[in-house]
Amino acid sequence: MRERNLSEIQTKYDVVVFGAGDVPTSSIILDILKNAKHIVACDGALEDLLKLGVEPEAVIGDGDSIAPELKEKYAHIFHQIKEQDDNDLTKATKYALNHFDLDSKPSFCILAATGKREDHTLGNLFLLLHYYRQLGINPVMISDYGWFAVASGKTKFSSFPRQQVSVFQFGCQRISSEGLKWAVYPFEEFWQGTLNEATGNSFTIDADGMYLIYRTHLPK
Amino acid sequence: MRERNLSEIQTKYDVVVFGAGDVPTSSIILDILKNAKHIVACDGALEDLLKLGVEPEAVIGDGDSIAPELKEKYAHIFHQIKEQDDNDLTKATKYALNHFDLDSKPSFCILAATGKREDHTLGNLFLLLHYYRQLGINPVMISDYGWFAVASGKTKFSSFPRQQVSVFQFGCQRISSEGLKWAVYPFEEFWQGTLNEATGNSFTIDADGMYLIYRTHLPK
Repeated sequence: MRERNLSEIQTKYDVVVFGAGDVPTSSIILDILKNAKHIVACDGALEDLLKLGVEPEAVIGDGDSIAPELKEKYAHIFHQIKEQDDNDLTKATKYALNHFDLDSKPSFCILAATGKREDHTLGNLFLLLHYYRQLGINPVMISDYGWFAVASGKTKFSSFPRQQVSVFQFGCQRISSEGLKWAVYPFEEFWQGTLNEATGNSFTIDADGMYLIYRTHLPK
Repeated sequence: MRERNLSEIQTKYDVVVFGAGDVPTSSIILDILKNAKHIVACDGALEDLLKLGVEPEAVIGDGDSIAPELKEKYAHIFHQIKEQDDNDLTKATKYALNHFDLDSKPSFCILAATGKREDHTLGNLFLLLHYYRQLGINPVMISDYGWFAVASGKTKFSSFPRQQVSVFQFGCQRISSEGLKWAVYPFEEFWQGTLNEATGNSFTIDADGMYLIYRTHLPK
């Protein structure tokens, strides 16, 4: 069984995709933006990003949520994609994969993709799995509150005592945990995977399918 | 096939459950609080509710997120439930069902249950389905951005032109729509149900299973 180590939150990513959700303000996220090799903004999120003092390399979207003045000013990096099957987050992610000069296993970090409209939050969370399966990347999604990572098989995750952890599993017939306060089992409903807690400096999940792990930045 | 009408957002509910997510500020939500027959706060959310000028009838939770002074001051309505299978939202909902004098089909509105920790948002959204199936209630969940309703079978929903709509279906083999810009089909992934739009003053969903409908308060 493949075993990986997901260490503490990285602050260096090949690609940062910045969405139109709640604008993050925590120092770790500002570090991530500062250290990013490539930054893509989703449509109107350009404005939020500029307020954080960050200029993206590209702005991707259907152009319906960006102010006309900004669209004109940033016309040299604005790529309008009208296609309706994908949302702006996916358009931006695919653009990065297709247009940036990336390593064969580029690291992706998605910011500002939760908060505000709840249907977008729900859709974006499930897109993490889609990118993992269909685009062959392993993105993390980080907010001021915590962060999601996608994994499958057996994975060791870094943690700290009393870190709040939630495990969302997708069609696993078998899933188990070590190092969490409550043993994980093949939950039937998503809410059953919430409210767990790390007991030490790492925990391990072993499953026959995919799962999303959420870890908070702070202990309870 | 059963057909129901879900009219414009109601502002009168038998029970309002107030969670510890983002604190709503829109006038419709303040109206809902003002009109509620019964209000239950989830643990530390009492503080948010008091800041809105609202005193709940009961405060339910495991007592770990409420300030000691508040817990003491509101000891007469604070009901500590330590049990670990349910989160505070479910504890509060069950408390209301078991302790308030309610009609046989009480209406429930859940507020402040999204935003902040994304794992809680995800869990709480799926709890709507759980309450619908297991507790026999049909709660709506409203935020400053939009609102979720649970339904099954054939349902007519009120809307307005260009209202943004998302449809999340759960294990439906058959699902169709009338009155939406893009026809709904049995999506394989949740993000596929986002980004839809009402074309007129109502739309209809017909399915052989359950679905969550999200409607925004404002047009695009």
